[in-house]
Amino acid sequence: MNMTLWPVHAFVDGLAATGVRQVVASPGSRNTPLLMAFAEHPQIELLSHLDERSAAYFALGLAKGGGRPVALVCTSGTAAANYYPAIVEAYMSRVPLIAITADRPPQLREVGANQAIRQLGMFGDHVKWFYELPIPDGTVQCARHAQAMAVRGATLAASSPAGPVHLNYPFVEPLVPPRRDEVPELVNLAPPATQMGPSGSFAGSRFKRLQEALASAQRPLVVFGPERDANLAKAVVAFAERTGLPILADIISPVAGSSQAVQHYDAILQAAPDVMAPPDLVLRFGAEPTSKALASWLVKSRARVFVCDETPLYRDALGIASDVIAGGVEFGLSHLIATLTTSAQAYMAAWRHADDLARRFIERFCADHWFEGAAVRATVAALHSGERLFIGNSRPIRDADALVRPQSGVIVDGNRGASGIDGLTSTAFGEALASGQSTVLCIGDVSFYHDTNGLLAAKRFGVPLVIVLIHNDGGGIFQHLSQASRPDTLHHFTTPHGLEFQHIIEAFGGRHVEVEGVQALMQAVRKGIHDAELTVVQATFANEASTHVYKRLFAELRHELERGMAQ
Amino acid sequence: MNMTLWPVHAFVDGLAATGVRQVVASPGSRNTPLLMAFAEHPQIELLSHLDERSAAYFALGLAKGGGRPVALVCTSGTAAANYYPAIVEAYMSRVPLIAITADRPPQLREVGANQAIRQLGMFGDHVKWFYELPIPDGTVQCARHAQAMAVRGATLAASSPAGPVHLNYPFVEPLVPPRRDEVPELVNLAPPATQMGPSGSFAGSRFKRLQEALASAQRPLVVFGPERDANLAKAVVAFAERTGLPILADIISPVAGSSQAVQHYDAILQAAPDVMAPPDLVLRFGAEPTSKALASWLVKSRARVFVCDETPLYRDALGIASDVIAGGVEFGLSHLIATLTTSAQAYMAAWRHADDLARRFIERFCADHWFEGAAVRATVAALHSGERLFIGNSRPIRDADALVRPQSGVIVDGNRGASGIDGLTSTAFGEALASGQSTVLCIGDVSFYHDTNGLLAAKRFGVPLVIVLIHNDGGGIFQHLSQASRPDTLHHFTTPHGLEFQHIIEAFGGRHVEVEGVQALMQAVRKGIHDAELTVVQATFANEASTHVYKRLFAELRHELERGMAQ
Repeated sequence: MNMTLWPVHAFVDGLAATGVRQVVASPGSRNTPLLMAFAEHPQIELLSHLDERSAAYFALGLAKGGGRPVALVCTSGTAAANYYPAIVEAYMSRVPLIAITADRPPQLREVGANQAIRQLGMFGDHVKWFYELPIPDGTVQCARHAQAMAVRGATLAASSPAGPVHLNYPFVEPLVPPRRDEVPELVNLAPPATQMGPSGSFAGSRFKRLQEALASAQRPLVVFGPERDANLAKAVVAFAERTGLPILADIISPVAGSSQAVQHYDAILQAAPDVMAPPDLVLRFGAEPTSKALASWLVKSRARVFVCDETPLYRDALGIASDVIAGGVEFGLSHLIATLTTSAQAYMAAWRHADDLARRFIERFCADHWFEGAAVRATVAALHSGERLFIGNSRPIRDADALVRPQSGVIVDGNRGASGIDGLTSTAFGEALASGQSTVLCIGDVSFYHDTNGLLAAKRFGVPLVIVLIHNDGGGIFQHLSQASRPDTLHHFTTPHGLEFQHIIEAFGGRHVEVEGVQALMQAVRKGIHDAELTVVQATFANEASTHVYKRLFAELRHELERGMAQ
Repeated sequence: MNMTLWPVHAFVDGLAATGVRQVVASPGSRNTPLLMAFAEHPQIELLSHLDERSAAYFALGLAKGGGRPVALVCTSGTAAANYYPAIVEAYMSRVPLIAITADRPPQLREVGANQAIRQLGMFGDHVKWFYELPIPDGTVQCARHAQAMAVRGATLAASSPAGPVHLNYPFVEPLVPPRRDEVPELVNLAPPATQMGPSGSFAGSRFKRLQEALASAQRPLVVFGPERDANLAKAVVAFAERTGLPILADIISPVAGSSQAVQHYDAILQAAPDVMAPPDLVLRFGAEPTSKALASWLVKSRARVFVCDETPLYRDALGIASDVIAGGVEFGLSHLIATLTTSAQAYMAAWRHADDLARRFIERFCADHWFEGAAVRATVAALHSGERLFIGNSRPIRDADALVRPQSGVIVDGNRGASGIDGLTSTAFGEALASGQSTVLCIGDVSFYHDTNGLLAAKRFGVPLVIVLIHNDGGGIFQHLSQASRPDTLHHFTTPHGLEFQHIIEAFGGRHVEVEGVQALMQAVRKGIHDAELTVVQATFANEASTHVYKRLFAELRHELERGMAQ
């Protein structure tokens, strides 16, 4: 028996929780852990069929007849290839199948080991989703992930339009897992319950679960991550206003600056995470929030977490979702408003108090200190309603998230899908051209270096753009991370380039202005917007000096919050 | 009957010519053209097997037992998916199979048509090669291409390590092709005979065919395209020296500047293609030559063409190969030297005479006119033995190919794999660093714009590079092409950017020098090499004026060649 295999039970739980009741298995060796786990599960009927081609077509028939997703399990090798005809048919006729192929571990691939073929993505464009699970290692984290991926696979297979998904599951010998009742951890590993489908199905039992959870929660909280959907934002703000829930609002979201928004939550949680009582219920919307302080605080809170997304491909990098609502979110919220009472007032008041303390302190601090964060703040302060801010990744977005409360009517965006630093200037030009609005890009010098070629857009399309360039010659984000422990390789992580950009900017027909201080920066931004020409407003900082300023900022804010919140 | 389907006969001829003798077919409708063409072919045994899974495993057994590649033919839809298990087995056990799947045409895909699935690349990483053939349109060009791809498929399947390939063949109704004897064009469509495999097998019948062809040829010619393999170049030069064959030498090849090399062939064939008698035998090495004038001249010549390459993925964009030698080339050439007599002397003399005339004229012309070509010529003239030239795409490479004869010991390279203009500066820096040799990059301004960020390498890695920047503000290559007939969209093809690069170059720590005239350019290049620092030597031209200069150059050269060759 191999105890490290216990996460397969969590995986099977995930399938069962998402409505899988029948599994068609074909005998084999490598799929032993799955066969045993399925056989033991109280809700699962395991049907054994010898020929994989027949097994897959049989499962197709079960799924068609039963109206539920059906799972398939086979061993590694050509066994898996025999699923192909039925998978193709399921894809074209939109029938939910979950093809689970056991596999040898990577160290037995590409070396000529027996029955080790190329199973990754082997069904090409005929599955809705492919994922390779990690080899079970006996940890709770691994089990939770396997469970979440099982939920995702079954949910995606069943979601509109239905179709097959493929999960490849590698196992290392010995292949016999522990029995369910030998795994105490399983008790606390409830798979996230998933409500899915278009708006019509919102009234199902799991939306009711959210209603009940909200009715009994003492410290419910909305977390709104990076997200561009203005309609969703409107629905969430209306919901929060009516129910009194605080919204921790990522700087890149249309809820930033709204009435229920707690804007400085990142600064608060960076400075003094303990002054805020943890939530007992969290409603998450949008992508994973930018704030790392929020992430650790949420993990610690052990709150019940509803992740609300438009698709079963929801975001839950922290692995803390207890419930998933996939689709029909706006409709569900508007329905809840009508029927709901919450007791969120005290929690909202605490957050508002902390946010006010933080805002007043940050205002004072940034007036007295000239550092990167103050420059980002000044940039946003310079903007008027109807103007756009595009905020760069790495430090600028983190500064904005912690220190800025945008004025109402200022649209804030950034590239947070993959959070790259490579095409920010060109993206900002694109937004400026498409929106016709005055646009300011706030960006670090390494990001600016990556896309100097993008400056050609100013001439080529006649688009004005004001760029606030926060220049600290490559910054120092890696110096604060674990890489700093190896000084011999640190130069592969730090990015000093020694470039002065003035002449490059002028070559592209732009104006370059060096500024120091809040007033000078704001004036330069306003002038750039007024003149409607390519203007780069550069604020230069020394990285080491700034490091001390940031330390002081959070130390003093902690003091301020501890004192203020105790009153 | 559908006459446009006749290219399937050429396709089947290609398989038969490459040694396919058995084809396992499963009945269907969409594969009708193939079934009928296979059934009629005198060398092919067509075996009909109902279940495609069994058919594929049966073909696997035939190929294992017979030691030859075996083809499979099925109709569209899940029929194809049933091949998967046997294809996987063939891939892992290295058995040559050619899986030919009939398909519906693109207009019936992704719209829910019956039996239209996603057959493109559907066997993923378990085939050595996938290709979708064009819908037969009844043209000779289409037939020749289908034939070449059949040869390639069968050759790749059989080449080491053997394995399956996948050809997807879409057909439009009606599906009944003409009979073989109703297609007169087939008579002249001999598929390229292919000799393949490692050097050991060179003594086979097809190498003998080259020997015989060489013995009887009156005007044999070597064409050496872009290629970096110095050993191959050495073997070809030794072969040409011994046999007296002229080598038309692409500027990017280690044979450029060698004793048998005709260096100005592109200029000669651009100016006066008629003054040179066409070859009756061509030996092609390397990639497709840069010269477009050579391409049309070769197509017109109707010569027998041996394409010699290290792989069955040989290059023959003109579709003129009569014979292919895939692998064992160097060994074969050295064997031929010992046994061969040719009568190439007169042809060599004619080429040498033309080359001398061209060289002398180009020297004079470039001394009297300052234009892009003269700048490229001066760049190369400035280089000493042991130094490297990296030549940019678009116009610089064409100028170099026509006008330059590199000095012995100067290594010339460029990016001719995909001929992009996007990363030339960075590639040149990489070559300079790895070789430790003084390196000059000769590049146009649009290419230079694309990779200004690459200039950071000078500081970051301490690599000196001299860049000769041929600046005509976006040039005008498209103005000479068919796009010019639509003035309303011409600005989407021309690339004026109005950039002056001086300040950008200085920002990256480089020196910018403007030059005019051959002497000034050569001096600036020498100084850049001597100082070993990033130096950009810019020569600026007005595109319209240059157009006239080029026209005069080729008109006068034509006159010169016609007079000189008549003597």
